[in-house]
Amino acid sequence: MNKDTICAIATAMSSSGIGIIRISGSEAIAIADKIYHSPNKDKKLQSCESHTIHYGYIYDGDQKIDEVMVLLMKAPHSYTAEDSVEIDCHGGVFVMQKILETVVKAGARLAEPGEFTKRAFLNGRIDLSQAESVMDIIDSQNQFALKSSMDQLSGKLSESIRLYRENILHEMAFIESALDDPEHFSLDDYPDELSKKMQDVIRGLQELLATADNGRILKEGIQTVILGKPNVGKSSLLNALLGYERAIVTDIAGTTRDVLQEQIHLNGLTLNLMDTAGIRKTDDIVEKIGVDKAMKEADDADLIIYVIDSSGEMDQEDHDLLSYLKDKKAIVILNKTDLEQKIQIKDVEEITNLPVIAISAKENTGIDLLEKQVHHLFIAGEITYNDQVYVTNVRHKSLIAEAISSLNLVLKSIEDQMPEDFYSVDLMNAYKQLGLIIGESVEDDLVEEIFSKFCMGK
Amino acid sequence: MNKDTICAIATAMSSSGIGIIRISGSEAIAIADKIYHSPNKDKKLQSCESHTIHYGYIYDGDQKIDEVMVLLMKAPHSYTAEDSVEIDCHGGVFVMQKILETVVKAGARLAEPGEFTKRAFLNGRIDLSQAESVMDIIDSQNQFALKSSMDQLSGKLSESIRLYRENILHEMAFIESALDDPEHFSLDDYPDELSKKMQDVIRGLQELLATADNGRILKEGIQTVILGKPNVGKSSLLNALLGYERAIVTDIAGTTRDVLQEQIHLNGLTLNLMDTAGIRKTDDIVEKIGVDKAMKEADDADLIIYVIDSSGEMDQEDHDLLSYLKDKKAIVILNKTDLEQKIQIKDVEEITNLPVIAISAKENTGIDLLEKQVHHLFIAGEITYNDQVYVTNVRHKSLIAEAISSLNLVLKSIEDQMPEDFYSVDLMNAYKQLGLIIGESVEDDLVEEIFSKFCMGK
Repeated sequence: MNKDTICAIATAMSSSGIGIIRISGSEAIAIADKIYHSPNKDKKLQSCESHTIHYGYIYDGDQKIDEVMVLLMKAPHSYTAEDSVEIDCHGGVFVMQKILETVVKAGARLAEPGEFTKRAFLNGRIDLSQAESVMDIIDSQNQFALKSSMDQLSGKLSESIRLYRENILHEMAFIESALDDPEHFSLDDYPDELSKKMQDVIRGLQELLATADNGRILKEGIQTVILGKPNVGKSSLLNALLGYERAIVTDIAGTTRDVLQEQIHLNGLTLNLMDTAGIRKTDDIVEKIGVDKAMKEADDADLIIYVIDSSGEMDQEDHDLLSYLKDKKAIVILNKTDLEQKIQIKDVEEITNLPVIAISAKENTGIDLLEKQVHHLFIAGEITYNDQVYVTNVRHKSLIAEAISSLNLVLKSIEDQMPEDFYSVDLMNAYKQLGLIIGESVEDDLVEEIFSKFCMGK
Repeated sequence: MNKDTICAIATAMSSSGIGIIRISGSEAIAIADKIYHSPNKDKKLQSCESHTIHYGYIYDGDQKIDEVMVLLMKAPHSYTAEDSVEIDCHGGVFVMQKILETVVKAGARLAEPGEFTKRAFLNGRIDLSQAESVMDIIDSQNQFALKSSMDQLSGKLSESIRLYRENILHEMAFIESALDDPEHFSLDDYPDELSKKMQDVIRGLQELLATADNGRILKEGIQTVILGKPNVGKSSLLNALLGYERAIVTDIAGTTRDVLQEQIHLNGLTLNLMDTAGIRKTDDIVEKIGVDKAMKEADDADLIIYVIDSSGEMDQEDHDLLSYLKDKKAIVILNKTDLEQKIQIKDVEEITNLPVIAISAKENTGIDLLEKQVHHLFIAGEITYNDQVYVTNVRHKSLIAEAISSLNLVLKSIEDQMPEDFYSVDLMNAYKQLGLIIGESVEDDLVEEIFSKFCMGK
């Protein structure tokens, strides 16, 4: 348990309606009492009940700093599981800074980034993967990322990991007992049994690992390239998608927008859209570079949207491109349904297995079908009701992979008919690696590293 | 009283530890109950006491959005004087936006900028000048600006204005009564009496108005030019001041720093420091332009710091410049006291009435004396204990000036021996103009204009 009391500004350092200064530790309430004055000046926070709100003023000596609300949360029922005070003040940079200085003068010290959540972990309120999910929630950019981080905060990943660890621990304990006390524990047929059990664990861990790539895509966004010949309406589609998004989701300030790339949110999925140069066979060297670049981007993309002008004719180039796309995650768009259609959905379906959707970017029809198709390609079933645990953290991913390797070594030892005490080393490794995910038997420097990535005041 | 319930994100829209979604209006608590789930799911906020904090989750239908603390403040004991709920969530942009959408879905509407404070005004909890002080507190950049805004929020300006208005109203009532009922109220000698009383009011208002320029300077910063011949240590002084500031005040993120201008905070005062080209007589045309520019800046400055190298000699140019400075707010610095001093303080004091301070920018000595001198020039007495009411708002300044004009017209009518009912028109104008400061008899469009300058969520 930490003895000292920490403080930080927990809201962003720019002007806003409300700012929060957060204090945690055994002296938190005593410190707040030194600087808080209730309107009639006789209220002491020390004698107030937990989870109550108190109107009044913060004073630096005789100087009234701000009109505030003070929130009182006593141990262990707080974020850190320590006595905690939050001062809700006016959201000005100077006034927040001034109150923070006053809190420091009254005896608290400035917190390190992430130190509040670190205390929640060290005080046993949450485990390490739950602590990590806090920053993921703050950084989440879409519905999926938020959901999977909330699941992790709720302990769903920890639960699976704990289960696998228990299985492994059970086997280690059995081997230990059998070697100590061969009279009561028989190891006959045990290697086969262990092999079966560990294959189950490996399968489970592999399923978890398989979610990691999808997790990455869904969390950071689907790299999407819009391909097509010139003047088929690629940019109109981009605009239609941007307009569609605005119609259903209010704009979120702070979303990073690359010059080359527009980010849109389609019902919980993030698409990082890249518009490309129109594709056509050309002898012009400069133009050819643009086309090659578009094809290169398509090679690396998670999703390709191939646009065809349905009021025109398909030519050899369309056939070539559709053939290039056949093994990729791609959707074919028949655009310009507002004009007379010379190409029908069935014409395209005859030459490709890819999904084909007819839209009019100009009249904004069919975009909902495209959205559904993207969902179908990337999420089995409705995301909202999908209870699968996703691995989205790179640290977790590599630890799971290491645990699988260790367990495969166990299988190898069994196959090679090595003595039973050989198994224990690798079982222990797998056990430790999984433990690192939830923060059991974790070295201090790992804890430091994880919490140093946090933002101030969390 | 507004019937509908409003909501907004009250913290800044960038990643941070904690974000706040604020709800106010008669349905605030019912709306919060629709989306808030306590851990055991059976708590209803409606049945909880005011000023309490509740741990739990925000749900959008079946989807858990975030782990939150919900703050309950019932009418009239809240910021808006209406039923209010604050949701403290993780400070991510997407998650805040998502909770806001959920609150809107549950029946609240998005607030206009400043609408929470507007409701506090319309519901009579604060007057207009107090409401205006809220944004001043948020925008305040230094101790003085914060103090004068807090004074205004505490109602100190309103108090003075109310007193003057009462005086004026009293006279209007007396004139009215005397004209209605000449038998009981005599107007003999009244014009003289009124003249004396209104001269008192005018004097008081003029004193208030006189604070406005100082108020502007202290709130926005003192435009300070560092002047001096080449190589006297102007830039070293700038660095010493910047270093001195860092030693006593932690850096504040978000402070605007102009390329040409460094802003420092000296114990509650803000100095906008401009370093200039060294001043010397020159035939080089380009250099002359730089010197002229420096002199032009000095002409417009609130404060000039004139630096002399005390290890050198004074020449005719120093004499010319000191003579130029004699009617300005200026401080003479004898720099380089670390070297052998050829110029003493008394030498300079013989030829100027300006304050003279010996420092060593290199060794960082004497900077505290400079700070004290700046304070002495701009603030009579200690700022912390100075109870003067400052006018820092341009709108207030021009209304006070208009009220003074109207009262001067009253004095003129008395002087011209006009009949008594002539006074009333101008008294009424002064009364109305002062009323506009605190928001009495204010037209709706003025209210709209004031609150539209607020930031979202306040």
